[in-house]
Amino acid sequence: MEQFDVRTPSHACMVDITDRVSRVVADSGIEEGICYVFVPHTTAGLTINENADQTVQSDILNRLDKIVPWRDGYEHAEGNSAAHIKA
Amino acid sequence: MEQFDVRTPSHACMVDITDRVSRVVADSGIEEGICYVFVPHTTAGLTINENADQTVQSDILNRLDKIVPWRDGYEHAEGNSAAHIKA
Amino acid sequence: MEQFDVRTPSHACMVDITDRVSRVVADSGIEEGICYVFVPHTTAGLTINENADQTVQSDILNRLDKIVPWRDGYEHAEGNSAAHIKA
Repeated sequence: MEQFDVRTPSHACMVDITDRVSRVVADSGIEEGICYVFVPHTTAGLTINENADQTVQSDILNRLDKIVPWRDGYEHAEGNSAAHIKA
Repeated sequence: MEQFDVRTPSHACMVDITDRVSRVVADSGIEEGICYVFVPHTTAGLTINENADQTVQSDILNRLDKIVPWRDGYEHAEGNSAAHIKA
Repeated sequence: MEQFDVRTPSHACMVDITDRVSRVVADSGIEEGICYVFVPHTTAGLTINENADQTVQSDILNRLDKIVPWRDGYEHAEGNSAAHIKA
């Protein structure tokens, strides 16, 4: 199992980890198999997109913010319930 | 493959199965690998949360109920469409 | 790894691939294991449902269309942002 840290600049953003995952796969020397990518942080999720057009990212983030608004009377005192729900 | 039953007291709730999964993993004797947890019921899903604060559970359940209301003109006669959709 | 193509008749629909996946599993000769099904298209997703009642499909599709409307001021020029988000 290989691990790496990811930093997020804001409370709702996408971070492209393709290169880092690709390097782990290349270094493993395995040519056919499943690379299982898991984020243990419960306020972060994983998605796959070809990222050919950056507006797809903003469309996804904007829509998610409409479905799960950042502030909306949540009880959880840390204030990050929206991130838990989206994740 | 190990199996166990989970009972749900209401139509929208969270049931902590961490201990039961941990026991299966411990009993397997495997020290590094992937534990694949699958729920065959199509009105139930799986999520991971550290459960440090119970309000995260209620915030998640309340928000899901807003996104997918229990009653909202669904056609499926069993009346559990919301659960199928959330799952 | 086995591959097959799936055609979608409209921009929001469900295509039952159970038989095709079952055939791949049967042909593999493997009796216990995990069949990992992956769709590389980033405007398509996978779900599991027993499909005993076709109205579950329409209830799911209708609700998803309410949560992520097909047209709603998205920026992505290809016009398929809703499909990216739903996927």
